[in-house]
Amino acid sequence: MPLLKFDLIQGRSEEQLKTLLDTAHEAMVQAFQVPHSDRYQCVAQHRPGEIVVEDTGLGYSRSRQVVLLTVVSRPRPQVQKAAFYRLLAERLQAVCGLSPDDLIVSLVENTDADWSFGRGRAQFLTGEL
Amino acid sequence: MPLLKFDLIQGRSEEQLKTLLDTAHEAMVQAFQVPHSDRYQCVAQHRPGEIVVEDTGLGYSRSRQVVLLTVVSRPRPQVQKAAFYRLLAERLQAVCGLSPDDLIVSLVENTDADWSFGRGRAQFLTGEL
Amino acid sequence: MPLLKFDLIQGRSEEQLKTLLDTAHEAMVQAFQVPHSDRYQCVAQHRPGEIVVEDTGLGYSRSRQVVLLTVVSRPRPQVQKAAFYRLLAERLQAVCGLSPDDLIVSLVENTDADWSFGRGRAQFLTGEL
Repeated sequence: MPLLKFDLIQGRSEEQLKTLLDTAHEAMVQAFQVPHSDRYQCVAQHRPGEIVVEDTGLGYSRSRQVVLLTVVSRPRPQVQKAAFYRLLAERLQAVCGLSPDDLIVSLVENTDADWSFGRGRAQFLTGEL
Repeated sequence: MPLLKFDLIQGRSEEQLKTLLDTAHEAMVQAFQVPHSDRYQCVAQHRPGEIVVEDTGLGYSRSRQVVLLTVVSRPRPQVQKAAFYRLLAERLQAVCGLSPDDLIVSLVENTDADWSFGRGRAQFLTGEL
Repeated sequence: MPLLKFDLIQGRSEEQLKTLLDTAHEAMVQAFQVPHSDRYQCVAQHRPGEIVVEDTGLGYSRSRQVVLLTVVSRPRPQVQKAAFYRLLAERLQAVCGLSPDDLIVSLVENTDADWSFGRGRAQFLTGEL
């Protein structure tokens, strides 16, 4: 159920984008322990001046490869969130060559009543999920 | 006040998009019982590979017509949320021919202090709304 | 740390966009009292029919210059939020000529565990931030 929205700067090929999404999905499935078909991803690709990210003094270098990921999810334990960030950074570096400096994640939580996956139903309330 | 953000795959005409937004607005107004001028909608249209949605095993078929809707709202009772999902699916099917399998909604709640509708004012705090 | 996402209608030059983002950042830094390098901004530019905003009966006039801003932040006091809305409206009017009627802001809160600024780490949990 988590919904993952990726904001990227233009320049990746369709193949590179697919690999990025597939890899992020694998990391999410493992960290959050959800079914593999629990996949809801959306990408927006921007011109360079449309994404401006600095580093809050952490000393990280941002490049045009930067991945700005926002996640909406029902509540998750801290340990799962920390595992997700770590796994995601590791996999995106290993599979996509993404610098770990180029990964920024922000998560927002909601609750059972806040999801409908189709057919106008709230599947976490009806017991279907 | 709810803010509705629609992520769609490219391919709808301007007229089709307008009808989709109008229809979604009517369903929202009825379900949430807000003034008709309480309308805040935004659409992003994507290339096919930029939206990847599966079905968490529910057996739904997603097509290129898929509507991925994220809503930000002050707290709403569960019954209103369920009514919104149901009405939205019904109306979009009846008016726009959207398959109910192609409607995914995720809602996030915030509070009175989290809105400014213009002029730098927080209208839910000032009592203007 | 706040993440600022701007939805705009196409038509601004790169220079105008840069000035808008710089000005919004200054207002945010002053209102939220964060480090100047705490900058995470993302813009999506839309065709006119993709943004539909009314005024909830407040009597405001929306134009094609409208700025629809969504902010994700750790919890902030009401007084900071109100100051942010006010400062943002003032500065955007003074520096960018934006009508205060054309500024809509919606904020969503999350918590320490919900941020990773790079390297797969949750910097508010590790104590790095």
